[in-house]
Amino acid sequence: MKIDRRSTQPLYAQLKELLIDRIRQQTYEPGQQIPSEMALCQELSLSRPTVRQAIAELVSEGILIIIKGRGTFVADEPERIEVKNLIAGQFSLLMARSLELQMHVEIEKVAGDAELDRLFGTADGPVHPGYWSIAWQQAENGQTYAFCRTLVPVSMFPELGPDLQQGKRMIDITANKYAYLPQKTAGRLFVRQARTEESQILDISRNAPVLVLSSRSTSRSGNVCEVSTAALRADLVALNLDSGRS
Amino acid sequence: MKIDRRSTQPLYAQLKELLIDRIRQQTYEPGQQIPSEMALCQELSLSRPTVRQAIAELVSEGILIIIKGRGTFVADEPERIEVKNLIAGQFSLLMARSLELQMHVEIEKVAGDAELDRLFGTADGPVHPGYWSIAWQQAENGQTYAFCRTLVPVSMFPELGPDLQQGKRMIDITANKYAYLPQKTAGRLFVRQARTEESQILDISRNAPVLVLSSRSTSRSGNVCEVSTAALRADLVALNLDSGRS
Repeated sequence: MKIDRRSTQPLYAQLKELLIDRIRQQTYEPGQQIPSEMALCQELSLSRPTVRQAIAELVSEGILIIIKGRGTFVADEPERIEVKNLIAGQFSLLMARSLELQMHVEIEKVAGDAELDRLFGTADGPVHPGYWSIAWQQAENGQTYAFCRTLVPVSMFPELGPDLQQGKRMIDITANKYAYLPQKTAGRLFVRQARTEESQILDISRNAPVLVLSSRSTSRSGNVCEVSTAALRADLVALNLDSGRS
Repeated sequence: MKIDRRSTQPLYAQLKELLIDRIRQQTYEPGQQIPSEMALCQELSLSRPTVRQAIAELVSEGILIIIKGRGTFVADEPERIEVKNLIAGQFSLLMARSLELQMHVEIEKVAGDAELDRLFGTADGPVHPGYWSIAWQQAENGQTYAFCRTLVPVSMFPELGPDLQQGKRMIDITANKYAYLPQKTAGRLFVRQARTEESQILDISRNAPVLVLSSRSTSRSGNVCEVSTAALRADLVALNLDSGRS
């Protein structure tokens, strides 16, 4: 990338792009000092006010930081919330050992429809009492990073809704229901634009990407016992995977 | 979301946003028919040309499709390239069984520097011959979806560069080098903006998000034998995770 003096784009804006480019290409790495204003003026034949304006805007955007008496540095990448030992059922309600549901939990009973029943493989089965639809948020250090929504058949856990509303712990709710607990979970991770509700809850713009983990759990008895979707703030989380050779 | 007649934003643009909102909220789902022009006119008290223009733009943007004689439908989401049974070493060179390296493979020998040596835990070790830096692309149906770059210490695999250049298969290259093959791999998945080189190779815009899998493999002998980074097209891939209860 070069400064183009015949472009209609102002020189300071071009310099901003050039500096961002160098940061992306890791010519200048996070935490590293960038050349001084004077050095940039000389290298690119730019005036001091042009260089100063580009740097000032990058500082106000949080891309560069000025440390008094030392110089201008590339800001460190924000620390991410690390999700350890990622598994397909990471955001499953039935597999949660110590779900903190005190806040922001919404519990609703929804009737089965053709689409839901297909998801659970009960499309051609007998009439059933529908599904618990449960939504909650996960936060770390006061920062909401995940919005989770899960569905569990009412027939398998008739008391799930009231139990959660009364503040019962998942470990007590699921005790002795082994036949209906997840034995296998298939998960699918992908990135898409946030839906309206997700963007509001995660406090991100409507076009921001979210990392979605959707999963479907099957019980020992072979029935689908939970279908869940978690939308994670793509700018905030990192998922850790470990594998050993067995 | 409502149509605001006193807004400076044209009505057709407001209607576009309203329709996108309903699609995101899944009021209208992928593959589903949306209300007719007439029904939208009536529901929202808009003129026919306004509704027509909004729909025409959404069709040209690929969000809606018109099926002749049937109506206007929400376009299906693009099919994603499914990465099955995701593991931390998914894009590791040493763990590849049948890497298709025929095309677009770049092999370079790089000298160790403080940062690389820290990554491999050889910062205070004796002088060594550096690292193989190997870059390749993965494609499916002619569509490049991953750009991978990996580092392997030359001391562990002295012939890796020439062997790959001569078209040797990874299974033959790694045979009998058990002490230096990955036994454990720690991976980290996150989303960030594409770097310049990644955006060029993956054919995406410079601000598009990529899904990054970075991983670090340790051999049976306890040495770091590979450090790799794969940048995946966030709009194209889905990663499948499976877990069973053991």
